[in-house]
Amino acid sequence: MRQFVVIGHDAPTTPDFALDDLAGAAGRLDVLCRCVNSAFFLSHALREDVRVHLVLGDEFTVTFDGADLRRLNPDERSTAALIRNALDRREDAIGHQPVESSPGVAIRRRGFAATLDALDGSLVHLHEDGTPVVDAEPPTDPVFVLSDHHDFTDAEASLLSDRADLRVRLGPTALHADHAITVAHNYLDTDGFESY
Amino acid sequence: MRQFVVIGHDAPTTPDFALDDLAGAAGRLDVLCRCVNSAFFLSHALREDVRVHLVLGDEFTVTFDGADLRRLNPDERSTAALIRNALDRREDAIGHQPVESSPGVAIRRRGFAATLDALDGSLVHLHEDGTPVVDAEPPTDPVFVLSDHHDFTDAEASLLSDRADLRVRLGPTALHADHAITVAHNYLDTDGFESY
Repeated sequence: MRQFVVIGHDAPTTPDFALDDLAGAAGRLDVLCRCVNSAFFLSHALREDVRVHLVLGDEFTVTFDGADLRRLNPDERSTAALIRNALDRREDAIGHQPVESSPGVAIRRRGFAATLDALDGSLVHLHEDGTPVVDAEPPTDPVFVLSDHHDFTDAEASLLSDRADLRVRLGPTALHADHAITVAHNYLDTDGFESY
Repeated sequence: MRQFVVIGHDAPTTPDFALDDLAGAAGRLDVLCRCVNSAFFLSHALREDVRVHLVLGDEFTVTFDGADLRRLNPDERSTAALIRNALDRREDAIGHQPVESSPGVAIRRRGFAATLDALDGSLVHLHEDGTPVVDAEPPTDPVFVLSDHHDFTDAEASLLSDRADLRVRLGPTALHADHAITVAHNYLDTDGFESY
């Protein structure tokens, strides 16, 4: 199981946003949609053994689970519609119970720290000062934590530093979150850089 | 210089498409927009030493040149608007002369074969039977050729086989074109898998 937690600092926490303005009024939801795309899509298949957790405004977390996922298309707009459908059900998300809004998509009333608490696996902090990923032993059940177009806040970075099992860098230059997911997948796919 | 040629088999060749339906009536222009994103964006910068050539319906080629590029944003919709602006100028593209529609974006009346003819560099054919990229010597000025959501046609594949300087695979599983661009960049960035 590979998991990706993506923090959407400006992301909407209500469904009243327009699909025509994802990069504007919808708080850069386009970034999160591309992260979902990168996490799941292969050329003619979905990665089933993947989960993505989008933390929206530190208030809700929308989880996409590859094992059950249906109706996911690669474009930003249709993915944003799935997120909007999840936010439509936010009032039903009581305590930490998930509410499934479409197959494989669920919303929980949970912020970043609580989401990390709930996940099993090895927490991987992507950081420019981390070990080059080529030199790191790939963990079995990695949980990668990424941020949207903003850097991690001090509080988030501190939480990550405390909890991370591994701190790696994916390359010599900082990448967009969705590109980082693609690179992370490729490194794991190629099994730590053996010939494949 | 890294260059990427992306064939849009169903892509529009006129500007009369809606930005609200990129994945539908606009012939999966969303795929090409994500390719542009992957080719140029770093976390807080654009890659200046990159060109992307989008072949639209084997009739026009829209080139994005990182050295001059302005007004590029990461989301699909705004990139599609730049392509639409280029198609608005298609009648001015006479012979093989480029017409610049916005800074760093130009349209030419040129199909796939003519686009390949015009490019300098080492042609890299991404192919599932190619040499694992980890075992290949990275070329200095690679020209990667990719296809949208369709496979290459027989004619395109034959042309590529004839002309390719190198045939590589990026991993054990076939990827979407935009993800392939991200992985190709990362391999080149990390300089043939040395520690960085």
